[in-house]
Amino acid sequence: MRRREVLPPCPECPPPAPEPAGTLARTAATGESMLPELVAWTSSFEPDRVLTRADLVGSAAHVTMLGRAGLVPAADAEALRRELLDLFARATAGTLELPAGEEDVHMAIETELTKKLGDVGKRVHTARSRNDQVALALRLHVRAELAGVLRELGPLLVDLATWAEEDSAILPAFTHRQRAQPVSAAFLICAWAQPIARAGDVARFALQRLDRCPLGSGACSGSSLAIDRQLVADLLGFSAPTENALDTTGDRDFELDFAWAGARVLLSLSRMAQDLVDFASREFGYVRLGGQISAGSSMMPQKKNPDVFELVRGKSPLGLANLVHLLTMVKALPAGYSRDLQDDRRATLETGPLVRGTLRAVRAAIQHVEFDDERCASGLADGSTQATDLAEALVKRGVPFRDAYKAVGALVRLAADRGVPLASLGAADAAAAHPLLDASCLAVLDPRRAVEAKASAGGTAPARVAEQIAGLRATAHDLAWAASEVPTLEALAAAIEKEPLS
Amino acid sequence: MRRREVLPPCPECPPPAPEPAGTLARTAATGESMLPELVAWTSSFEPDRVLTRADLVGSAAHVTMLGRAGLVPAADAEALRRELLDLFARATAGTLELPAGEEDVHMAIETELTKKLGDVGKRVHTARSRNDQVALALRLHVRAELAGVLRELGPLLVDLATWAEEDSAILPAFTHRQRAQPVSAAFLICAWAQPIARAGDVARFALQRLDRCPLGSGACSGSSLAIDRQLVADLLGFSAPTENALDTTGDRDFELDFAWAGARVLLSLSRMAQDLVDFASREFGYVRLGGQISAGSSMMPQKKNPDVFELVRGKSPLGLANLVHLLTMVKALPAGYSRDLQDDRRATLETGPLVRGTLRAVRAAIQHVEFDDERCASGLADGSTQATDLAEALVKRGVPFRDAYKAVGALVRLAADRGVPLASLGAADAAAAHPLLDASCLAVLDPRRAVEAKASAGGTAPARVAEQIAGLRATAHDLAWAASEVPTLEALAAAIEKEPLS
Amino acid sequence: MRRREVLPPCPECPPPAPEPAGTLARTAATGESMLPELVAWTSSFEPDRVLTRADLVGSAAHVTMLGRAGLVPAADAEALRRELLDLFARATAGTLELPAGEEDVHMAIETELTKKLGDVGKRVHTARSRNDQVALALRLHVRAELAGVLRELGPLLVDLATWAEEDSAILPAFTHRQRAQPVSAAFLICAWAQPIARAGDVARFALQRLDRCPLGSGACSGSSLAIDRQLVADLLGFSAPTENALDTTGDRDFELDFAWAGARVLLSLSRMAQDLVDFASREFGYVRLGGQISAGSSMMPQKKNPDVFELVRGKSPLGLANLVHLLTMVKALPAGYSRDLQDDRRATLETGPLVRGTLRAVRAAIQHVEFDDERCASGLADGSTQATDLAEALVKRGVPFRDAYKAVGALVRLAADRGVPLASLGAADAAAAHPLLDASCLAVLDPRRAVEAKASAGGTAPARVAEQIAGLRATAHDLAWAASEVPTLEALAAAIEKEPLS
Amino acid sequence: MRRREVLPPCPECPPPAPEPAGTLARTAATGESMLPELVAWTSSFEPDRVLTRADLVGSAAHVTMLGRAGLVPAADAEALRRELLDLFARATAGTLELPAGEEDVHMAIETELTKKLGDVGKRVHTARSRNDQVALALRLHVRAELAGVLRELGPLLVDLATWAEEDSAILPAFTHRQRAQPVSAAFLICAWAQPIARAGDVARFALQRLDRCPLGSGACSGSSLAIDRQLVADLLGFSAPTENALDTTGDRDFELDFAWAGARVLLSLSRMAQDLVDFASREFGYVRLGGQISAGSSMMPQKKNPDVFELVRGKSPLGLANLVHLLTMVKALPAGYSRDLQDDRRATLETGPLVRGTLRAVRAAIQHVEFDDERCASGLADGSTQATDLAEALVKRGVPFRDAYKAVGALVRLAADRGVPLASLGAADAAAAHPLLDASCLAVLDPRRAVEAKASAGGTAPARVAEQIAGLRATAHDLAWAASEVPTLEALAAAIEKEPLS
Repeated sequence: MRRREVLPPCPECPPPAPEPAGTLARTAATGESMLPELVAWTSSFEPDRVLTRADLVGSAAHVTMLGRAGLVPAADAEALRRELLDLFARATAGTLELPAGEEDVHMAIETELTKKLGDVGKRVHTARSRNDQVALALRLHVRAELAGVLRELGPLLVDLATWAEEDSAILPAFTHRQRAQPVSAAFLICAWAQPIARAGDVARFALQRLDRCPLGSGACSGSSLAIDRQLVADLLGFSAPTENALDTTGDRDFELDFAWAGARVLLSLSRMAQDLVDFASREFGYVRLGGQISAGSSMMPQKKNPDVFELVRGKSPLGLANLVHLLTMVKALPAGYSRDLQDDRRATLETGPLVRGTLRAVRAAIQHVEFDDERCASGLADGSTQATDLAEALVKRGVPFRDAYKAVGALVRLAADRGVPLASLGAADAAAAHPLLDASCLAVLDPRRAVEAKASAGGTAPARVAEQIAGLRATAHDLAWAASEVPTLEALAAAIEKEPLS
Repeated sequence: MRRREVLPPCPECPPPAPEPAGTLARTAATGESMLPELVAWTSSFEPDRVLTRADLVGSAAHVTMLGRAGLVPAADAEALRRELLDLFARATAGTLELPAGEEDVHMAIETELTKKLGDVGKRVHTARSRNDQVALALRLHVRAELAGVLRELGPLLVDLATWAEEDSAILPAFTHRQRAQPVSAAFLICAWAQPIARAGDVARFALQRLDRCPLGSGACSGSSLAIDRQLVADLLGFSAPTENALDTTGDRDFELDFAWAGARVLLSLSRMAQDLVDFASREFGYVRLGGQISAGSSMMPQKKNPDVFELVRGKSPLGLANLVHLLTMVKALPAGYSRDLQDDRRATLETGPLVRGTLRAVRAAIQHVEFDDERCASGLADGSTQATDLAEALVKRGVPFRDAYKAVGALVRLAADRGVPLASLGAADAAAAHPLLDASCLAVLDPRRAVEAKASAGGTAPARVAEQIAGLRATAHDLAWAASEVPTLEALAAAIEKEPLS
Repeated sequence: MRRREVLPPCPECPPPAPEPAGTLARTAATGESMLPELVAWTSSFEPDRVLTRADLVGSAAHVTMLGRAGLVPAADAEALRRELLDLFARATAGTLELPAGEEDVHMAIETELTKKLGDVGKRVHTARSRNDQVALALRLHVRAELAGVLRELGPLLVDLATWAEEDSAILPAFTHRQRAQPVSAAFLICAWAQPIARAGDVARFALQRLDRCPLGSGACSGSSLAIDRQLVADLLGFSAPTENALDTTGDRDFELDFAWAGARVLLSLSRMAQDLVDFASREFGYVRLGGQISAGSSMMPQKKNPDVFELVRGKSPLGLANLVHLLTMVKALPAGYSRDLQDDRRATLETGPLVRGTLRAVRAAIQHVEFDDERCASGLADGSTQATDLAEALVKRGVPFRDAYKAVGALVRLAADRGVPLASLGAADAAAAHPLLDASCLAVLDPRRAVEAKASAGGTAPARVAEQIAGLRATAHDLAWAASEVPTLEALAAAIEKEPLS
Repeated sequence: MRRREVLPPCPECPPPAPEPAGTLARTAATGESMLPELVAWTSSFEPDRVLTRADLVGSAAHVTMLGRAGLVPAADAEALRRELLDLFARATAGTLELPAGEEDVHMAIETELTKKLGDVGKRVHTARSRNDQVALALRLHVRAELAGVLRELGPLLVDLATWAEEDSAILPAFTHRQRAQPVSAAFLICAWAQPIARAGDVARFALQRLDRCPLGSGACSGSSLAIDRQLVADLLGFSAPTENALDTTGDRDFELDFAWAGARVLLSLSRMAQDLVDFASREFGYVRLGGQISAGSSMMPQKKNPDVFELVRGKSPLGLANLVHLLTMVKALPAGYSRDLQDDRRATLETGPLVRGTLRAVRAAIQHVEFDDERCASGLADGSTQATDLAEALVKRGVPFRDAYKAVGALVRLAADRGVPLASLGAADAAAAHPLLDASCLAVLDPRRAVEAKASAGGTAPARVAEQIAGLRATAHDLAWAASEVPTLEALAAAIEKEPLS
């Protein structure tokens, strides 16, 4: 074929390993092999190593079914399963080395089996394709990661609930980054926890939706052999096989669900982190961060920086990017498998450690955060954040709200004009603003009383916050329960080992 | 204050209306007013018009509760409710004009009430803030839109199921945009439908999660008045009030859920559209598009273009952009309301019409698409797509799969070398490739037989496809049911009108 | 064709206008017409109205060329041009009404010409396609919008420069939202301005890259008629025609460049806005916002909120979403025109007003922002932000930096342990921390002196800031110059009118 | 501090190394240290290894300047520089091991220097902060990567130009994935190359904009020591220092520019890849892919898949994700350094290898792609793609274009009704459609003649394509030139070594 500019080796890249093209880089129909540098570029071997154990358990379930269905002699199925579970044990122990020369983990395992078992190894790929095999390994991986995320989310909610129970500070809540109304720190902590709890719900939904087993879809249309997909599903802890083979092999919706849950967790944490970074500033000073979670500066000796919470805040862009990656990947792909789907790996394999790691960092960090009661209280001292309470006190006396609002607005203006706190104004000033505004009204300016008065459902009054705390604990329990229902790969392997083969 | 460069009027922009700043553009605490050009720039009046009816129904529920709770005299509550429902009726009829001079729809309604009812009007904002009021109007809007989306999704699945039942073509399924295996058109249609069904499930989940009523959260911490949030929730068809007032007023997670569902619907449609655009090409020719859904060219007289499906494909970027918009908006926002959240409008208000419109276009268009039986069959004629069946025929005779695969690969190569179809090779050629490859094996090269043979669960055999079709109809039913449980604004208004006020 | 579920009218959608399908919704090769509801759904008539004037000027240039090239009789060209420029004048005056029944603005104009001029009108589309025609209208539009953005950016930089010159406050600069080192407000303002200046550079680059005229590319391969593309380019103020017709008709890279510039402008403003929102809080208090740019609360009478800067911050997600929209749109599109490209409109047409409007809001708003000298100074009073200066004073005496850093760190710790400001420590304490740390060293703790001492290039010393201010003014000039080189549509129309036609 | 739920070790995570917190994880002002698990989580040591060489060269320039400026004794500067360049040589040779126990590469190098040189090592951080040091290392890295991208882009354009010169096929161009007009393969190749060339221009612009040296900005406000920033800039091949220290330390705009260029390159390649994947299908068959770039299937023996081009298409989502990551990261960050910025690493460090690798894969792959002359020609055989030429032939005889268009449309319809190719219609049919449509007109139906006739600028006629090819070669030259102006780190190191130190 035509010759164009000769490609000199890239000075910055390692040279491609001169490995012979593996099984699939050889086109069976022509016997030709892909160029080594392209085999290297197209290979997903490295990222896929993390899928090895899932692939082995999936294959163990597959050969068990092949044996039971009579598609492979029982003795062969036995040998294959024994070898697969042995590889699994070695992979778990970190001692497995896969043979080189194949372009992915899945073919490397088949090669290993054939090396060990001879012709028996050639039976492992009966009635399946890499398309459904990879889909299975990815689902098992994502299922485990979702369970891992839920296992961190529950305890984080418990930690937040405990913190809320133990803290007694009151401080201004903010809207528009301006002091708004007095609330308890406990109430604020519950407000931080709510989006996290909702993100947990998203993760739980992702777990439910993933509950279908892709194996047996073959390349795109199923198999002409009498396989038993429900059995494989049962062995691997799925409720049922997937519905349509062509859809299944080109489907990465379960990865989208996962990336979505991850992005939501990270975004919810970014909002709490923003408050903590701000509140840890000298200017706010509403929280104190322990030295165990702070960092210094290489140049400025006085610095004590909230790096952990900045990094927590900074993780959400990564979660969002992974989501955008996967969404853009599937845009306008034809039905069925396209190789584009292989590039799901980075986003999918990164999401679990990213989200779990961030959750663990948050859990570790909030143990060393304390509200500063005095600074918090000082934010409420001038009384202006209690202005709404004053207006509502008038409403209780029958004044239409908008009139009450205006009267109190005038009082606030009066205090500002005089340069004194609202709380320092006397009964005469109050009465001038509105005849019904008497001394007993002014009592609502006490900030702790203002907190206690917000006793409507979802309000900041202690009894309401106690309900919110209880709700968080209940959600934590639900998330932990959902995680606990996901079998580990080890448990699956142990159960599969005991299944009859004929 | 300092003077900088004077701003000349922008030659390309309409001049800001010289409207006086409304209630909120005046700072109550100082009496100052925002510059008119900034009032115009910050206003959400125009986009919010679509929320008017939701806001009125929400307010009608609110005053009903205020009356029952004794926070507003029953007669005043009666008058307010009557007027609000009258405004609702006029808004529904398209005859409502809101007074100018306020910066949003919500304050304009209060102004209108006060104009009509005097002091009574000033009571409507008792125990609420714009923060919870806007959150309510948005939730009611999104809930209705989600129901609208579900009302289109169900019938689309039914249409696809019907199409699958009626079509009898068989054609190649593709992987890597290369012919892979023979499937029925019905099976392919089911593969297109599966991601749509999953997206419907996402929409249904979004609807469930939205089921909490924000009203009564006030500005950020609830109210000191004895409001009954559960009653308001009941009147508006929500299960319960939201859990935490500070969280609620800064929460747009229900919009994220909605945008996510919308993006998923559009992405699932983009994949079907890609296949249809390709299949409608002269080169593929597997489908014929009716003239009712095709377009010509301004310059090329011969053109007949699949514009509808191109535009369907092209809608997913918009859905994705709206999702990214909302996700980026909430990144690192502090707890509580920030004005940034107002810019949720474009993404949120656009999503419903975008998704519903696209679904309707798809439904209309697929009625005028037909598989071309002959062209479809021609894609299978040379037999190569049945190569896997041949290998599996050998497996049935006990040959290890990988050996069978290689033998058939050799046969395919032989056909290619001779430049003849695989199906034209004879028994002698077959036997040369593998001794067990006899004439009865070659019978599996018949494409229709190959389709029928894939009888594993989720396969392309007719009985399996019938199960898939039944599954789609069941999902369609579930989606329609979920939609039917969402009360319309009209129904809510009618029910609220009959509620006692004391 | 098969019948599926009948589509009932959508209760929430306006019914599609029963307009007859226009020229292109009729397939010339078959005579069939698209369904009216699909014509309505696929139409870009409404968004395209904003392109009308650009389209008319482009057509005027086109017919001028057709006349000069002898492809249209000179008299016909004259008549066409006169009518086109008349339509342009009416469109400019806001009195143009386009005929209904066509699916886009471009065909409506051809219809209008034919109505007025008879057969002469049928000549306007000679040697062009909608593909290149739309590409031209979009380029003219984007070019004008880019110039409009540059016309706002320059003055904003000037305003910031002026503000920097006039302000004399000194305050802490922040890293990690912790007080770092003393800087002048002027220096901080310059820091805000730098990313804006860089974004302006991006916009200028986008303008350069757009400078190719697409007209004459036809549908995809040029024309067999002897057109003069360079002449059209000249008439419309472009340097040259585009290079390849197939590329041109499917190219939206100029829109990507535009959306990119817009996103960069908005992101740069979001960072300044974040600081202003924070600094306007009671806790920071470093800036005071005038009532002319503040807003109140519907419920809390005391509130004075920085809504303008919150909304400025909140615009960047929209800019980012528009960018993602366009990027995702072009992903994996084949060469040549696909109808997906029509959905560029929302993102492209919105970007100009979005960015220009935000820039104008910022310019208006910063006129009413003042640094609070006293509060700013109080942030430096305890001396800790001058710790680096102390360490550098030791370096000047020959102490290795890391030792100096540690000695000053010990001093800071001493102050903290005693609960006193660093600045209050005496010579004895200093000497204990390091023998070379004497009283003259301690003089660097004076914050204004610390500001003046940072005289390295780019530092906060007054002379350095003056350089930075001069640089901003120079950039503003460059941006304004680039904008001034873009001819207005009016100027183009006036010049084209005088061109000879043969 | 309060105790919450004890954190059990994560079963899936490696335990954090029990390393002592490094220099910065110790808060100098308090002496406390960060928890080891948080040190591990916050560390960027691993990703930063790739920045080691850039950091060392930057430090060598820095100490050279410190020596010349008298801020460090010349002998000390000499020792530091010698050691830094020695570390650089070892890093280049792959034999450098950095000491453990520091949380980033930069501090590890300082520790290493101090271990080797004692007190002299403590002078290296004079007048700089990690903030400006990291900004420098990242700039040097991005600059080298941009040059690397340009070094691949130029040759790719040359390869495409060569291919275009050598290929003589003609085939249909497509719009709406429908055959539109005949073009040469050379013209199509040029259309693929144009967006790539534009992306190259974007990369070149990114390189220009990056040309400012950040070192000497210190933590945020410069230094009180008499440093010479211009000298450092000169030593490192930058034109000048950056303008404002606070901006510089929080600025990642150069990374945005880089990610943008990368995304543009990948998107432009995705469009060519889409065409190649489609054209390699059996249905199109317009190109043949060599076995050297194809892959087989694990299950289907007949498959020969275009995996390389699918993966090329699938890389653009990753490029887009990295861009979104960085854009979202900087949204609403305050001026100055925030630790969020550390998470730029993944996106920034991945972009270079991703883009360069993809470009190299494309270059390798297109050497094994051939247009199939016969199949290409068959796409033009029926004459319908020449319909526009027929209409333009009528225009040449004075017929208004729209009439000509309609007449030819009728002729196309006639051919369709008869089920015969347009090219088979005779003079009588032509005359019936339009009296001026005679036999000489019909001659334009010859496809090669139609290609030659499109001689307008940018058209598909051979002379025009030759211009386009020449243009691509010129662009390739410009890109290569831009790349060649970027000094390598080795060249910088060698030059710095010879600089006087006093």
